[in-house]
Amino acid sequence: ACGISLCLDLVLNHTAKQHEWAQRAMAGEEDYLVDHHTYVIASDGDLMEGVSHEACSLAGHLALSKLIVLFDDNGISIDGPTSLSFSDDVTLRFQSYNWDVQEIDGHDPAAIEAAIAQAKTTDKPSIIRCKTQIGFGAPNKVNTAGVHGAPLGADEIAGTRAALGWSHEPFEVPAAIKRVWEQAGSRGHEARDAWNTRHGAHAQKAAFDAAMSGYLPADLADTIKQVKQQASEEQPKLATRAASGKVLDAIMPVVANLIGGSADLTGSNNTKTETGGILSRDHYAGRYIHYGIREHGMAAAMNGMALHGGIIPYSGTFLAFADYNRPSLRLAALMEQRVIQVKTHDSIGLGEDGPTHQPVEQLAALRAIPNLNVFRPADLVETAEAWEVALNSPKTPSILALTRQGLPTLRTEHVDDNKVAKGAYVLREPAAGAVAVIMASGSEVEIAEAAADLLAAQDIHVRVVSCPCLDLFDQQPADYQASVLGTDMPRVAIEAAIAMGWEKYLGPEGVFIGMNSFGASGPYKALYEHFGITAEAAVDAVKSLLN
Amino acid sequence: ACGISLCLDLVLNHTAKQHEWAQRAMAGEEDYLVDHHTYVIASDGDLMEGVSHEACSLAGHLALSKLIVLFDDNGISIDGPTSLSFSDDVTLRFQSYNWDVQEIDGHDPAAIEAAIAQAKTTDKPSIIRCKTQIGFGAPNKVNTAGVHGAPLGADEIAGTRAALGWSHEPFEVPAAIKRVWEQAGSRGHEARDAWNTRHGAHAQKAAFDAAMSGYLPADLADTIKQVKQQASEEQPKLATRAASGKVLDAIMPVVANLIGGSADLTGSNNTKTETGGILSRDHYAGRYIHYGIREHGMAAAMNGMALHGGIIPYSGTFLAFADYNRPSLRLAALMEQRVIQVKTHDSIGLGEDGPTHQPVEQLAALRAIPNLNVFRPADLVETAEAWEVALNSPKTPSILALTRQGLPTLRTEHVDDNKVAKGAYVLREPAAGAVAVIMASGSEVEIAEAAADLLAAQDIHVRVVSCPCLDLFDQQPADYQASVLGTDMPRVAIEAAIAMGWEKYLGPEGVFIGMNSFGASGPYKALYEHFGITAEAAVDAVKSLLN
Repeated sequence: ACGISLCLDLVLNHTAKQHEWAQRAMAGEEDYLVDHHTYVIASDGDLMEGVSHEACSLAGHLALSKLIVLFDDNGISIDGPTSLSFSDDVTLRFQSYNWDVQEIDGHDPAAIEAAIAQAKTTDKPSIIRCKTQIGFGAPNKVNTAGVHGAPLGADEIAGTRAALGWSHEPFEVPAAIKRVWEQAGSRGHEARDAWNTRHGAHAQKAAFDAAMSGYLPADLADTIKQVKQQASEEQPKLATRAASGKVLDAIMPVVANLIGGSADLTGSNNTKTETGGILSRDHYAGRYIHYGIREHGMAAAMNGMALHGGIIPYSGTFLAFADYNRPSLRLAALMEQRVIQVKTHDSIGLGEDGPTHQPVEQLAALRAIPNLNVFRPADLVETAEAWEVALNSPKTPSILALTRQGLPTLRTEHVDDNKVAKGAYVLREPAAGAVAVIMASGSEVEIAEAAADLLAAQDIHVRVVSCPCLDLFDQQPADYQASVLGTDMPRVAIEAAIAMGWEKYLGPEGVFIGMNSFGASGPYKALYEHFGITAEAAVDAVKSLLN
Repeated sequence: ACGISLCLDLVLNHTAKQHEWAQRAMAGEEDYLVDHHTYVIASDGDLMEGVSHEACSLAGHLALSKLIVLFDDNGISIDGPTSLSFSDDVTLRFQSYNWDVQEIDGHDPAAIEAAIAQAKTTDKPSIIRCKTQIGFGAPNKVNTAGVHGAPLGADEIAGTRAALGWSHEPFEVPAAIKRVWEQAGSRGHEARDAWNTRHGAHAQKAAFDAAMSGYLPADLADTIKQVKQQASEEQPKLATRAASGKVLDAIMPVVANLIGGSADLTGSNNTKTETGGILSRDHYAGRYIHYGIREHGMAAAMNGMALHGGIIPYSGTFLAFADYNRPSLRLAALMEQRVIQVKTHDSIGLGEDGPTHQPVEQLAALRAIPNLNVFRPADLVETAEAWEVALNSPKTPSILALTRQGLPTLRTEHVDDNKVAKGAYVLREPAAGAVAVIMASGSEVEIAEAAADLLAAQDIHVRVVSCPCLDLFDQQPADYQASVLGTDMPRVAIEAAIAMGWEKYLGPEGVFIGMNSFGASGPYKALYEHFGITAEAAVDAVKSLLN
């Protein structure tokens, strides 16, 4: 069940939390371009996992009536009967979530058909408890964990054949069954034709097709450029979470299929804009979801939206809570889905909330996931560029790690080019030629710049490399990497997090300035001092490497 | 609520799933050395998080009647009223878990007292819904999210004082209140004296004190040595998960306060021994817990056991599912608690279950957590040593990453010394002197040895370094590290996972042989070939570095 649950939890979330939003948000009640139900086959294990609570509670809250869960209620898990570990009253539980609950014999096709027909009439999500026997027909192994993952074996197969009255050869499909199966296969023909007709004549055909194709509107690039240009001119001091809010304000009206939300940290994450309104049971066309305190379910729902197609989901929570939704984020990366997670409060820079809330290992742990881009922009310009790359990555999920604390604008000269797209780039090159390189990301680029100023006053001239996305920099050709980092200059890297992930650039010789323990509670500037993440430390590191 | 939930989920789990087991397991119904109730104050956010489902479902299953949860039912979360995202019927939900549920006015002390008295009489866990007003008395901010995390401000404080009839100066505690408070403080005096008397005369005093002190029995070291010696003599070919099962068979009778379990993968994790029986509502003295498909709740419960004291919890699931319990594992590391997680099926070597189940980034992501030891032993000897180090680390949680596939015994000469304790050590030193170093962990040490054999046949002699715990190796003095890795030999590292974490040893010059993508489904030997994790690849790498 553990293995199955990995898949089914996803489907359950996908369905419970997003499939229906997708279809309602994209169409509206009177529109028949998207009107399917979504079916889930769920196991005992699925209903034990915590994410089932988050998903089903929210599905009930939002009255996702097109969701129909068939619960394979066989009472067996890998360790044996579920009574070893489980005694929930599943009916009561789902009633507590405002679901419609039915109980049937899961081996009775007529009962299944009737239950599904009934489920379609309710205004709630539905769960149908299908009482079944695992290994149905197997004379000795029926209703045991022995049929969960292992083959029956020759004797038990023979016994099962006898019990079910099955006399056909292996892999022989009897003609009568084949005929019915083929009928099932062709039964959707008429519905498909009707859909094609509706689609062809539909007023929103173009918008629908564009959304489903996953393409972005042409205006997006201009919108991002305008944000960048204005930022470079006005040079605001801004937390990157606020910068992200500004970017969202600009792009939400342009990218109509963006649907956002937050796990109850809306004001802190700067994820809500004036565009689109709140998605609720009374307003499925809303474009912002109050996910509640459900980080895992939120991420799973986003996968569902992305898989459904036509929607680009983004969300918000704190970076430290990336741990809570890691399983669904991994699946997004594995399934190559475009989901965008805003993760604010991205270091000890969040201050007084202390080590429970201060990510130190999360950046490394997220960079470790294949096919996931972790962005940590340094100012509003880089934040806009990070959003642009994330939106233009249809097969890769993205994390935007953003500060709570204010940061200066460092990209003060506008260029149309998206510099974040290459992951790292030279932000400051001394006219005199550099003798060392300081690499940094996000809030620590400001510190790298300050160190470069201090060193320049001592006639030591260093290059500053901004590294908003190490994952993308890793993918650049070796000659680009060498052009950014040099080939024989000493290297120092600064990030208010652990060194893991930077060591490939630093090797045993380079110096890393960051964290090697959990954080602490205090004003953020005091914490940077306490942990020695300062321009002075970078100055000392450069000088020690040059000696 | 999100912030609070981090703490309270833990307490909830701690309480719901372990505190009572600890006391019952340690004492028995008739024994009054440990007889406390455990109280939880839980928020709306706690009840939304998925882990609350896992914890409370299992608490109900196990009838943990000493658990009393006071639910601060104020209907407000950070984003606003919980009605934005939540419409569970909490009473029905907890009844579905077999809990006792009461509803009271949370501002009425007499009602609270009566409800707690009532909760103590049930044979179920109890939740008391305390209907409260957040910001009680604040004339304008009462019942709003505005009092969740921000100060009231001077005007609102003045209004609240007026509403509550509070005329005292800030920080002035009126004498009448101080008196009552002091009485509360001294009220436990008699109970404490009585406990001291019972404790002093108790037949199990010595065992109880030993368990609570966290010390291990003196026999443990001998037991581990015997396992190692026998392994070196018999040289079994054994999956390290089976090796771990053998170690547990040996140590469970010796370390009486070890309590194990698995998240429904008992047979796969080799976590169950013949010692102690199953912990259930009818047998709290059991020493093995069927946690069900609840990885997160399991890890949270282990934290609770460890915090309670007197118990050393271990558990089992697949390594890929480390993602599911990462939040609680992080808290174990932050709180310096001795919990031991067996994580089997630790690479693509698990074979056909495919990329969802194949960890590639989990080892790096776990090594990233400060104060967590990740062990990846190569054979039965190293597995026994890893268990010994884990047990002897009272302030550090441990992961044991173990294979599904069989591995040869590599430590064929017995030594009493625990070589795993230093994290990495020289396993093979060529008599002729080494010209290169191959580092590897776990199942890949066999590959490193094979590569060394192939190279030796070509008269190229390499050192093989087994690296069962990079976290511990990182803590060794520089001279030990240099003695193991050399200072100027080329280095190759092999691990069937991503390179992150190895790069500090390899730098830009060294070669890593491992994964840089998600896995695939296939027989395990075919997968190692497919991803190029072979002795031949290591041979080529060494030769290319020497040229």
